[in-house]
Amino acid sequence: MTDQNKSTDLDVFFHSRSVAVFGASTNPNKSGYKLVQNLIDHNYKGKIYPINPKGGEILGRKLYTSLTEVEGSVELAILYIPSSKAIQVLKDCIQKGVKGAIIEAAGFGEVGEEGKKLKEQIIALTENFTKIRVLGPNCTGITFVEKDGEGFFSSFIPMGKTKAGSLAIVSQSGFINGAYYPDFTSRNPNLGVRYVITIGNKMDLDENDILEYLIHDKDLSTIGMYIESFRDVRRFIKLCNEAYKNYGKRIVLLRSGLSSIGSNATTSHTGALAEKSELIKAVIAQSHCIQADDFWDLFNITRTLSFMKDTNIKPIYDASACVVTISGAAGAIMADWSEKYGVKIPLLDDETYSNLAKLYPPWMAPNKYALIDYWPAVENAKGDYQRILLDCIDIGLSSPRINAAFVAAYHNATAWKVDWNLLKEIMARHQKPIFIWLFGEYHELIEAEKIFQEIKIPIYHSEREIVQTFKKIVQLK
Amino acid sequence: MTDQNKSTDLDVFFHSRSVAVFGASTNPNKSGYKLVQNLIDHNYKGKIYPINPKGGEILGRKLYTSLTEVEGSVELAILYIPSSKAIQVLKDCIQKGVKGAIIEAAGFGEVGEEGKKLKEQIIALTENFTKIRVLGPNCTGITFVEKDGEGFFSSFIPMGKTKAGSLAIVSQSGFINGAYYPDFTSRNPNLGVRYVITIGNKMDLDENDILEYLIHDKDLSTIGMYIESFRDVRRFIKLCNEAYKNYGKRIVLLRSGLSSIGSNATTSHTGALAEKSELIKAVIAQSHCIQADDFWDLFNITRTLSFMKDTNIKPIYDASACVVTISGAAGAIMADWSEKYGVKIPLLDDETYSNLAKLYPPWMAPNKYALIDYWPAVENAKGDYQRILLDCIDIGLSSPRINAAFVAAYHNATAWKVDWNLLKEIMARHQKPIFIWLFGEYHELIEAEKIFQEIKIPIYHSEREIVQTFKKIVQLK
Repeated sequence: MTDQNKSTDLDVFFHSRSVAVFGASTNPNKSGYKLVQNLIDHNYKGKIYPINPKGGEILGRKLYTSLTEVEGSVELAILYIPSSKAIQVLKDCIQKGVKGAIIEAAGFGEVGEEGKKLKEQIIALTENFTKIRVLGPNCTGITFVEKDGEGFFSSFIPMGKTKAGSLAIVSQSGFINGAYYPDFTSRNPNLGVRYVITIGNKMDLDENDILEYLIHDKDLSTIGMYIESFRDVRRFIKLCNEAYKNYGKRIVLLRSGLSSIGSNATTSHTGALAEKSELIKAVIAQSHCIQADDFWDLFNITRTLSFMKDTNIKPIYDASACVVTISGAAGAIMADWSEKYGVKIPLLDDETYSNLAKLYPPWMAPNKYALIDYWPAVENAKGDYQRILLDCIDIGLSSPRINAAFVAAYHNATAWKVDWNLLKEIMARHQKPIFIWLFGEYHELIEAEKIFQEIKIPIYHSEREIVQTFKKIVQLK
Repeated sequence: MTDQNKSTDLDVFFHSRSVAVFGASTNPNKSGYKLVQNLIDHNYKGKIYPINPKGGEILGRKLYTSLTEVEGSVELAILYIPSSKAIQVLKDCIQKGVKGAIIEAAGFGEVGEEGKKLKEQIIALTENFTKIRVLGPNCTGITFVEKDGEGFFSSFIPMGKTKAGSLAIVSQSGFINGAYYPDFTSRNPNLGVRYVITIGNKMDLDENDILEYLIHDKDLSTIGMYIESFRDVRRFIKLCNEAYKNYGKRIVLLRSGLSSIGSNATTSHTGALAEKSELIKAVIAQSHCIQADDFWDLFNITRTLSFMKDTNIKPIYDASACVVTISGAAGAIMADWSEKYGVKIPLLDDETYSNLAKLYPPWMAPNKYALIDYWPAVENAKGDYQRILLDCIDIGLSSPRINAAFVAAYHNATAWKVDWNLLKEIMARHQKPIFIWLFGEYHELIEAEKIFQEIKIPIYHSEREIVQTFKKIVQLK
């Protein structure tokens, strides 16, 4: 069986027509109950067979005592059971012709001798996973969002009403569900997600198998990955290149375990070997991946790319930007970081300069570089802050030398009111991204952020973060 | 006149007994009105003499038509007038025996030949500022907070009800008032500030004069500075060293104009020369300053230091910390950054390890390093998340090898409720800081942040930011 064939096998993990849930519980406080509830609440279209030797009823459905009791065919199994019972259940699954199993439990090789022995038994039983493919163990399931709030939600952790979109998250940490993911989506309520896939200890399926599957999904634009170890780094690089060059997909990678203690931590965490920081640098350089600094950055970059896709921003191959700032100081800081990160703040072309100059007072001409300090223009326009701010962004983005706007803007809900919705049309017209750092009264900023979410322009924490994020998303030719 | 004598001259800028406001306006929408209002609203204790050739009344007070009309003595003058009128006003001030002038206006040398000429005239008139000391021009005044909401508030931009504390902000950008400062203080409502000083174009008084004055203030702990150029870099280094070694004060420096375009920007902005990035590195290395990345970082570090002072945290000379995390992944990321930034995550001493081990289940012992993944302990405690989280921080901080706790915690207002107020007692007992990254539903995090503000533990944006901020605040011996 070639890798290619293996990859198409994975359909069953996302588009099954029937699923057996081992370890389904009748107790609404237990995870085995919530797993079934997740499937039902998100309108899973296939048949659900909850299984528990005790029998009974769950959410108005029959609890089967074993798989043999199920009459219809079963394509996928979810195991939320102690590891000691896994062998028997997997035997039953193979006999029944189940094609895939998601093992949402720990104790399979990440700790101790017993775990290792169990893993060897499973490998023998499944004939090296040719009889059945396995995701996990030590994972928190798969989410496939078919349409807003609906699809295949198979975690034992209750999942919210995810919007459908073009983003995939692949994580070796099960903590993504129930913790990082709610944080990410509640900060970005208008962000659409297509997959959340936890790969856990990668007994069979690993990041490469998942990646190979995902790159063929036409509706997917961006893949954010948290990985603690690479199973096969050459294949990873090959797949990332393919994803990027043949399928136009962006991959953002957060790789932990680079330090001696960090790698020690992930080793105890998921039983994987750790490679070193130098390797990661080489991987990033060769794979067209974007390296994230931490979980915040992983989500920050993926939301940036995803919103850019959603708002039809053109691909950017040239790291050039204009700075549009109400504060000369913030502008200077952004220019400093631009030079440090290799982002050009170009000389203005004649047309752009002359359009800008029309807004400025005679006593203060605009800068000859694309460092647009719009304060004098606001004074010149008798305080029409909104018009000048929008015009400066518009004029900056009009220049063929400029591929993005870095904006440092003061927000005041009363005195200097700006209808931020107006940025949407400007961005759409130029198909170039706007990176904004907003400062003002904190509670007013939180309110303003809601508007930015609606128009899918992320707000950044700082001047440095803007320049760094932009530099990271610029594409190699 | 020695520098030392000059420095004591500055008292008049903060503790004057009488102030003349040139350019006071009867129109409540004008800045010349707001300047007087700021003084009155914040209960300035001295006499206020609003001056405008038109005469009239402002806020129930007489508007003097000129300084000569004022009978009492005047110690300080604030000039909110066109630059063309500055010479006459300064002449009047010198004649009257006014000791200091704050020039809150532009057009004095930052642009064009006329400005330069004016500057030369002022130097001649003031006999190189021996007749009168000048702050500005192109600044937005001085704030000295005597007690909560009261003191000397001399900006033409309306200022809020600042809490009194041990922090000074010195800024070459006037934007600090009305924009950055409200952002900073509304994010940190429990932060106390003592000075906000805008130095503008530094015609006379520069960052060094201000610094020399501030370091003698016993009630001051932390100084945050935004500087676009150094007037005298050797004196700056000398003063910073003195501030640090003799007076125990911490200085955080944000220096812009490091890049060619950035320096170009600040040149046009305030008429100062720009030095290069290499110089800054040397300055930081020699001065015991902490370098900030941008405005966010400037405020982030100053609030961290200020809160540490307020909560009696001991000085930290050894960059060692424990990581306390609910997510193995977040822990690994923080360990990676710790290694990169040179922060030790030490091996646990026997006592600490054995105290931790009591919390863990038999199937999952704690890490031998100070990388405390507390999830297994929560399971072992049947889900008593709050107790385990607090105990792990407490045990970690008990170790003599550990000087801080880096915490990655999940926040859920209902399911995993933690009374974060309880951190206060733990921190107070150990006198070691807690750096926390909180994730969960965004609106719940915003609510939780209010509690952290009350107990003066800042919340950080990301894992990387925690490690970087801690590393920056560690002191050289």
